[in-house]
Amino acid sequence: MRAEIITIGDEILIGQTVDTNSAWLGNKLSDYGIEVTQITSISDKKTSIINSLAAAETRADVIILTGGLGPTKDDITKKVLADYFGASLVTNAEALDNIKTLVKKFSKELLQVNIDQSLVPDNCTVLQNSRGTAPGMYFEEKGKIYISMPGVPYEMKTMMNNVVFEKLNKRSNNFALVHKTITVVGIPESHLSAAIEHIENSLPSHIALAYLPHLNIVRLRLSGKSTELDNDILEGQIDNYFSEIKDIIGNVWFDGEFQLSEVIGAMLKKNNLTIGTIESCSGGYLAHQLTAIEGSSAYFKGSLLTYAYETKVEVADIDQEMLDTYGAVSEQVAKSMAVNARKKLSVDYCISTTGIAGPGGGTASKPIGLVYIGLATPDGTVSVKKCQFRGTRLQVIERTAFTAFEMQRQHMIAAMQVTSL
Amino acid sequence: MRAEIITIGDEILIGQTVDTNSAWLGNKLSDYGIEVTQITSISDKKTSIINSLAAAETRADVIILTGGLGPTKDDITKKVLADYFGASLVTNAEALDNIKTLVKKFSKELLQVNIDQSLVPDNCTVLQNSRGTAPGMYFEEKGKIYISMPGVPYEMKTMMNNVVFEKLNKRSNNFALVHKTITVVGIPESHLSAAIEHIENSLPSHIALAYLPHLNIVRLRLSGKSTELDNDILEGQIDNYFSEIKDIIGNVWFDGEFQLSEVIGAMLKKNNLTIGTIESCSGGYLAHQLTAIEGSSAYFKGSLLTYAYETKVEVADIDQEMLDTYGAVSEQVAKSMAVNARKKLSVDYCISTTGIAGPGGGTASKPIGLVYIGLATPDGTVSVKKCQFRGTRLQVIERTAFTAFEMQRQHMIAAMQVTSL
Repeated sequence: MRAEIITIGDEILIGQTVDTNSAWLGNKLSDYGIEVTQITSISDKKTSIINSLAAAETRADVIILTGGLGPTKDDITKKVLADYFGASLVTNAEALDNIKTLVKKFSKELLQVNIDQSLVPDNCTVLQNSRGTAPGMYFEEKGKIYISMPGVPYEMKTMMNNVVFEKLNKRSNNFALVHKTITVVGIPESHLSAAIEHIENSLPSHIALAYLPHLNIVRLRLSGKSTELDNDILEGQIDNYFSEIKDIIGNVWFDGEFQLSEVIGAMLKKNNLTIGTIESCSGGYLAHQLTAIEGSSAYFKGSLLTYAYETKVEVADIDQEMLDTYGAVSEQVAKSMAVNARKKLSVDYCISTTGIAGPGGGTASKPIGLVYIGLATPDGTVSVKKCQFRGTRLQVIERTAFTAFEMQRQHMIAAMQVTSL
Repeated sequence: MRAEIITIGDEILIGQTVDTNSAWLGNKLSDYGIEVTQITSISDKKTSIINSLAAAETRADVIILTGGLGPTKDDITKKVLADYFGASLVTNAEALDNIKTLVKKFSKELLQVNIDQSLVPDNCTVLQNSRGTAPGMYFEEKGKIYISMPGVPYEMKTMMNNVVFEKLNKRSNNFALVHKTITVVGIPESHLSAAIEHIENSLPSHIALAYLPHLNIVRLRLSGKSTELDNDILEGQIDNYFSEIKDIIGNVWFDGEFQLSEVIGAMLKKNNLTIGTIESCSGGYLAHQLTAIEGSSAYFKGSLLTYAYETKVEVADIDQEMLDTYGAVSEQVAKSMAVNARKKLSVDYCISTTGIAGPGGGTASKPIGLVYIGLATPDGTVSVKKCQFRGTRLQVIERTAFTAFEMQRQHMIAAMQVTSL
């Protein structure tokens, strides 16, 4: 089964909104063995919508539309679909009840534009919206399936999860589709490719290898598609190729495509260890990455964000003379921060960061992108890594977090003789 | 001038990568008065690339492709373009020099796949890549412009900024195009729409209004397009409509579409005030949002992330008896956190957060999504807001930050008699 996604709204075309809906849909549809052949983003214009529908029909069995279902005048998807199918708009009683309940819940007045959201084309199955006022629509016409949903991500996702995936799953697939990924840390794409070239050349035609580089990692994806094999056999074949690859590259991979923060979180939890951070230039990004993970309270205890010079002294007891002598961005301060905060937070591991994220604040001897990362460990050692990162402010912050987490991961592997995730 | 963007790579279709390149391109192209009519994401397959090129040519003057230029076997864009234009691949000396320099800089061995990246179709102008090994390509064929660039965001952005926008700008536009946005806080989309309906109905046909709701805000965008007016006149008309809208809705808007953290940052800076946070459930997200902004060291001094129960006592001097009596997630603790941290960090404003982000940890009396937000202010007052948020862990964290920043903004407006940004 093949699907195409059409996202409707000028906000995507002019870059005001990043299209995360398509990524989520593409990911989930692949899990259900449905191949996404194209994603198209278009304007809120009748001709654009109709032309895209007509083109998608020639390639796909399922056409998923998001956006253009709001209560305001710029939202035209529903009307265009009704015209496209020659259908009339009729009130859906359940959708109207839902709208009334939601409007009442938020103590707002019921407006005509709210009531009009309960109108749907008479040829659709309504996808009730438990999280908002705009109902979704499911059509079967001309041997194809058309699904139209709101662009609000959690409303769309709830509709897909509650109803649509099950409906699609019943239209059984005629081929097996497996995607698996491993993440490789610290080997450049071209060298990784050279190291595993003979494996890549030996792949059968139904399995393809893709390289997805980002910062200092490369995600390697093997995708298999077959009308003859079943899913388990296909997955077994892919696992075998990954085993060969892992043997060649050594202990620099982990399964899946987790964030590094997830990987070290899982390793800490498994080993009953705790972590904290003391951050200057990264401004809480490491802590946010660590605490964004469900269940992180099992190993993350807290952080000191000593952004200002005086906060370093007052909150983290950094020696004023040391700061004056070496500056806040120095190996000495990074080390002292990690050691002091490890004690103050009563944690096993403590990461410190101090640097110049930019775009202001750089000097000849301390340029933008210079970051010292400290790591105080349960065995009493403390190491500091001096880094010179490129990129924007946010890229420097992101690279700082990545490098710090990888220092931490490597220490755990070496000290604890454990393998990674 | 009309443009279309084609992003190439299965990683986008299966949702492994979110297509942020298109958003960036759409945003910048709009600034240059170039209208983006469609964004298409397709597979690394020859037929998909050729069909998309042929379709885009019928609608646009400029076709921008990203992706598929890497050194590995899954990268086929360059070869397909050469075939499409009937061109031969030839070595570009400058690209080869750049590759050699980069490979040397990172102390790696020069591989054949690296050298092959210097091959380009003989009908293109090469866009040298100062940040990576894959050269970009600029073609003029059949009266259209085709631009092919790497998918790595900072490589693509550097090429666009250094060379391509200037090239495109020289092909003067035949119409004026203006997009302006204001952000409205705390009025639901349908109510906002009802309040300004008469203005919307009075808009001339060359100006369109769009509503972009997210969390508790609605961004209102007026887009004007005209072949008769010049840009300044069009912008003046749009400003006038926004003035009318602002008069109706009162002091709940700010110009542009900044993050709230940027807005309060600018207000703090203007008023010479400082801020810090003490965070539990939000785990550093508020601090990260504040410090992600360039120049934030002018007003952000630091944070205490007292995630664990004992860290609240040890680092923020929260009374053990209070914690035992009311629990960490309570009005009393939120208040005490804000007051204590305001002193410890020596800041004017201090925001505290304590709550249950989920998905674990909820109880009947303290359900997931319950968050207390405290705000200690320079006038000595401290207020606490009890919130019940919906959504995933990250949504609860995001809503916490949004609500906290809006509390802070409203306090500044009320206390300081200042307007927002």
